[in-house]
Amino acid sequence: MCEQRAAYRCITVVGPGLLGGSVAMAVRQHMPGCDLRVWGRREQPLAYLRERGITQHTYTDLQVAVQGAELVILSTPIGCFESLAREMLPALADDALVTDVGSVKAYVHRTTGAMLTQRGHRFIGSHPMAGSETTGVENATADLLCGATVAITNPDGVPAEEEARLAAFWQSLGCTTYAMTPENHDRAVARVSHIPHVLAALCAHAAAGDNVPQADLQRLAASGFRDTTRVCCGPAPMWADILWENDVAVRRALSDCMSQMQTVIDLLNKQDKAGLRRWLETAADSRRTIRREQETNT
Amino acid sequence: MCEQRAAYRCITVVGPGLLGGSVAMAVRQHMPGCDLRVWGRREQPLAYLRERGITQHTYTDLQVAVQGAELVILSTPIGCFESLAREMLPALADDALVTDVGSVKAYVHRTTGAMLTQRGHRFIGSHPMAGSETTGVENATADLLCGATVAITNPDGVPAEEEARLAAFWQSLGCTTYAMTPENHDRAVARVSHIPHVLAALCAHAAAGDNVPQADLQRLAASGFRDTTRVCCGPAPMWADILWENDVAVRRALSDCMSQMQTVIDLLNKQDKAGLRRWLETAADSRRTIRREQETNT
Repeated sequence: MCEQRAAYRCITVVGPGLLGGSVAMAVRQHMPGCDLRVWGRREQPLAYLRERGITQHTYTDLQVAVQGAELVILSTPIGCFESLAREMLPALADDALVTDVGSVKAYVHRTTGAMLTQRGHRFIGSHPMAGSETTGVENATADLLCGATVAITNPDGVPAEEEARLAAFWQSLGCTTYAMTPENHDRAVARVSHIPHVLAALCAHAAAGDNVPQADLQRLAASGFRDTTRVCCGPAPMWADILWENDVAVRRALSDCMSQMQTVIDLLNKQDKAGLRRWLETAADSRRTIRREQETNT
Repeated sequence: MCEQRAAYRCITVVGPGLLGGSVAMAVRQHMPGCDLRVWGRREQPLAYLRERGITQHTYTDLQVAVQGAELVILSTPIGCFESLAREMLPALADDALVTDVGSVKAYVHRTTGAMLTQRGHRFIGSHPMAGSETTGVENATADLLCGATVAITNPDGVPAEEEARLAAFWQSLGCTTYAMTPENHDRAVARVSHIPHVLAALCAHAAAGDNVPQADLQRLAASGFRDTTRVCCGPAPMWADILWENDVAVRRALSDCMSQMQTVIDLLNKQDKAGLRRWLETAADSRRTIRREQETNT
């Protein structure tokens, strides 16, 4: 900690949704002296934050909101990042760091990151692995970030001490940080986040097939269906964006899913019960390996 | 209740695993006066039940275990039902009812049910929609059944008052009951239980693909991956049996999954973000419809 630069004194959260609102609440809780500002397009979520005493510094004018900020956190849908970043340029301090909370990283660096870097500004990507199937500031909570891993992507050459300062910021909110390349990030989240979302949706779609009476499905669906499909109720526009923005990695992963599904069908066609068992065991092993570090706290 | 026959005074649970053990515990809790017997192939789970005061009437001899029982509950893997039912024939009382807790029903009626009916005995299928990714009597608990739906299948013409008595038994353990044909049961559970299991396993398999560094997956996997894949750690031999015993309905559902997956890939290939959004919205609607009755208590 001795070499680390001081905590940010002025932070602007751009977009008070579930994640942006949660970041604002966590900043208020863990960094009480910080000048916390929140920009939103609509007044209502801003009023929500003011009424709960999270901050009185809320803005619908982006340039006013970012003026003097040391850290700007883009928390809107990813598709808005670049135009918002352009809009804030005239007011953005030279030494401000811009980061985000987007679920894909190569796309963000290729667009927003490249644009900011070209104009002499600094951008490092962040992705807090936190969320839920709910949306909106009314579901935000400081706890959402507690214990979450934040992937940090810094391919545009922002100095290491700035990256360390950003990591320390997330850590002060209760997160752990993990530095990655944008490409490795996107390939990994395709597998552990985006494909689970697609498969959850697929499971819900398949339930509705074959004209099985709805009452039967309603009566028989239990915890397995509940958990396997839970995430598919997340906001469809946001998830459509995520899949589209990470389409290369997602399509590769979907193609693996297709061949795994063909494997199961072949095993059933061949009545190969031993093969089916091995396929299920390998899946369970894979899950246990991936969740190894986490089993203790969930 | 006035017309209903009295509760069973003597019940034999055949197979003290997770579900059989839980049934035994629930009987002990809710029917304290009942002569509860448990048969097991191995001594260890029987000792477990004796030591916890669930029952002292445990047996490794099946014929002794079922002698005088009014209700016999098959709780072993489905593949063992028929041979166990044959083995108990000489000792089975004429007015005894045999039921089971198996996850597929047409197969069970076609084999075990048909054999018992042919010999003048009575069989009604039961399927408590309860379970977890754990196994064994050491994970059994009376609570597992509390609030669970039990599907009841009675295609072999057992009189309605016997079916009502069985339903009352399950209800006295805290379950709700739901009468169905075996075929409708199997088609519905393929959709809300067996396919979720396959997709959970598929999700875990796909995570291991494309040589994504394991450390990246371990660090980034969060609650979405946890919940979508949870059930795939269930006992592989049991699940291989279930998929195989319900293979017609499962293969139909898998073929629906294949075409849904092709739909997603096509939407991504066409960069059809609006179509992707609609596909995700339909999935969320489907899930909400199916879980409508349950949202209040989970």
